[in-house]
Amino acid sequence: MDIQQTAASAKKAATQLAAVSADIKNAALSEIARALKAHAKEIVAANQEDLQQAENDNLAPPLLKRLRFDQSKIEAVCTGIDRLIDLDDPVGQTLGALELDQGLELFKVSCPIGVIGVIFESRPDALVQISSLCLKSGNSVLLKGGSEAARTNRILAGLIAEASVAAGVPDGWLGLLETRSDVAEMLDLDAFIDLIIPRGSNAFVRHIMDHTHIPVLGHADGICHVYIDRAAELEMAVNIAVDSKTQYVAVCNAAETILVHEAAAPTVLPALDAALSAKGVELRGCSDTRRIIDILPADESDWRTEYLDLIVSIKVVPSLLDAIDHINRYGSGHTDVIVTADRDRAFRFMDRVDTADAFWNCSSRFSDGFRFGLGAEVGISTNKIHARGPVGMEGLLIYQWRMLGNGHVVADYGGSGGKIFTHRKLDKRLSGSNPSSP
Amino acid sequence: MDIQQTAASAKKAATQLAAVSADIKNAALSEIARALKAHAKEIVAANQEDLQQAENDNLAPPLLKRLRFDQSKIEAVCTGIDRLIDLDDPVGQTLGALELDQGLELFKVSCPIGVIGVIFESRPDALVQISSLCLKSGNSVLLKGGSEAARTNRILAGLIAEASVAAGVPDGWLGLLETRSDVAEMLDLDAFIDLIIPRGSNAFVRHIMDHTHIPVLGHADGICHVYIDRAAELEMAVNIAVDSKTQYVAVCNAAETILVHEAAAPTVLPALDAALSAKGVELRGCSDTRRIIDILPADESDWRTEYLDLIVSIKVVPSLLDAIDHINRYGSGHTDVIVTADRDRAFRFMDRVDTADAFWNCSSRFSDGFRFGLGAEVGISTNKIHARGPVGMEGLLIYQWRMLGNGHVVADYGGSGGKIFTHRKLDKRLSGSNPSSP
Repeated sequence: MDIQQTAASAKKAATQLAAVSADIKNAALSEIARALKAHAKEIVAANQEDLQQAENDNLAPPLLKRLRFDQSKIEAVCTGIDRLIDLDDPVGQTLGALELDQGLELFKVSCPIGVIGVIFESRPDALVQISSLCLKSGNSVLLKGGSEAARTNRILAGLIAEASVAAGVPDGWLGLLETRSDVAEMLDLDAFIDLIIPRGSNAFVRHIMDHTHIPVLGHADGICHVYIDRAAELEMAVNIAVDSKTQYVAVCNAAETILVHEAAAPTVLPALDAALSAKGVELRGCSDTRRIIDILPADESDWRTEYLDLIVSIKVVPSLLDAIDHINRYGSGHTDVIVTADRDRAFRFMDRVDTADAFWNCSSRFSDGFRFGLGAEVGISTNKIHARGPVGMEGLLIYQWRMLGNGHVVADYGGSGGKIFTHRKLDKRLSGSNPSSP
Repeated sequence: MDIQQTAASAKKAATQLAAVSADIKNAALSEIARALKAHAKEIVAANQEDLQQAENDNLAPPLLKRLRFDQSKIEAVCTGIDRLIDLDDPVGQTLGALELDQGLELFKVSCPIGVIGVIFESRPDALVQISSLCLKSGNSVLLKGGSEAARTNRILAGLIAEASVAAGVPDGWLGLLETRSDVAEMLDLDAFIDLIIPRGSNAFVRHIMDHTHIPVLGHADGICHVYIDRAAELEMAVNIAVDSKTQYVAVCNAAETILVHEAAAPTVLPALDAALSAKGVELRGCSDTRRIIDILPADESDWRTEYLDLIVSIKVVPSLLDAIDHINRYGSGHTDVIVTADRDRAFRFMDRVDTADAFWNCSSRFSDGFRFGLGAEVGISTNKIHARGPVGMEGLLIYQWRMLGNGHVVADYGGSGGKIFTHRKLDKRLSGSNPSSP
């Protein structure tokens, strides 16, 4: 099958999948977990081949570590599937109910988006997590994993598709894409694909965003800031800055720039210098910073740079509003932190910073679906519509309006003597779906 | 100011407007209503000039009617503003609250999207409605109205901007675009504009969607269906079909195709023919239809056509699933109706039809923000993300995650002996914003 056929099948399956009952979806998830455990040997063997190839290709050790999919990883993803089974069905929830007139009722009901295209990095666990999230939420999914994991992904996708279809899920709901040209083709298939979630490098995500008319959920840059206010407690400020910068440098929620209020600079900057240098961080500062500590210079390009490395830029700002302006100008709307003992100033910051995650007195590294309690994470979004920040299953859902009448027509309303809408809120759920019937 | 400057000012104002208190926004709305009434004479005079020009240009009578903005229209939009003032502030609502650990709390808080670009038709009342909705929801707005209404729009936008800024709303929050080239420029300004809402013809909206990377909320086609099931009551079916097709033909929620179950066709089709012909509708049918009633032939292109006129296409389908397949293939995901006395079949239809508004036993013409009780309508969306169907103020909002800690860092969590997340739902609102302070 070519990509267009795969996507068309996914679209067709999506309409059916939207109407598949919770019982069948949960049975399919159980079968998937069972199949993964039953075929653990073949999965691990396929992964060994991928690992061998990757070693031959001199893949960097952190990437090799992410690529590894062993017995304990299989058990971990199966535990994740069990948790998903325990969740209420997210489809068919009544989100609102309104009487328009006697016998004419309007309901807002949650439903799947349709077909989701997900492009993800080398971790094969991501394939299992994403496809099980899509299944639970009633979406078809087109998956493109890292090419290093091709053998592992192929066997995983095959097992998931086979087990779920055997349990009654419509064939075609899961499609595997294998090459870069598959991805390029996918970007044009807006007739079949409703949402693309690209995970990966800044440049890659930006490329996707710039080359498709399909809505994209995700983030390109992660230029996160820690602003240390004049009213910050010194030790807390340094701890948060160090954690935000160094706890894991290669991720999007790591801090790249530290802003320091000028009144705090004389005490904060030397302490920051000592603590960050001890962690091996290269510091680059504005001229005001360098009048207080002896570090490398930063220029404007530093404010726009996501280092993803042991490098940080530091800028002294004359006021809270200047910190906010800097963040709104150079930030990527991902995660921005204020450290201050002044609640009023914290709220002024959070009210004005145009960012998905506005944090007060805690590390930027907390911005993550697991830490947010969302269960599995679909991705982190810097979009301004639909879903923002860490996105869990909610991001895979939309709603449908359902109106139930008894022959009501618009011609009867309005005008003199016409019927009038009651618009009375109803406290009821829409029931009556019998989704598993053919 | 050129468009780029206008948009940059709107962006700057948006950050401030997000933090403006409900009191100031409501005071501004009051001032706007006061100013419109106080300057009614000048507004009506400007509108008279537009009307004169439009008559000279031989604008069609329905367009002239929409263009007219007289004393009663001014009073109507002011009543709308008063209703908006009465609504709770939609910004700063706590949508979720979770304890992550002792003293580390996460809140999901509603906030404005930012800068909304709205392109609307000739009705000058739309300018007042859209700008007041944007103000209430804390969004900046760039407005482009119909060029026929240029003089009316200019005076309205000027009064609204002046009155609101005098009441404390940040300058620049409302920008008026006046030419088609302004719109073309706007489509490239994704650095400043967060969402575009185009209202207008199919071709126009599609052009916008195809020429910008800014998210677009709206609909191009409105190919709506009425499916008359084998279990439909005849009189109800005919009434709903007639209302859906003829109550107002030039609108997106009017029906374009009627699908009839083959078991119902022998009774339904003659009744439909009589009722629709009496309303002056031209009927075009598939070959099965034409075996029963003598009407013009329909070919595949009819299934894809939004007539917006007194023309309807009719197709006989062998089953409920065939009706669903037809709608999912040719429909535009706007509004689709089933007429049936069988509740099970109605739910099977609603579960499977991939449409924003799935209606049972009522006219497609009910799909409208006013009828849905949404207050003013931003537009009708066939998007699969963010907002679907008639969109009211909710479509202008997104959320921000706010985490409040006490020096919490990620390094303390996980690993052996590390802290553990509690992920305990909190029943509290985030308070403490003091948004009006500088």
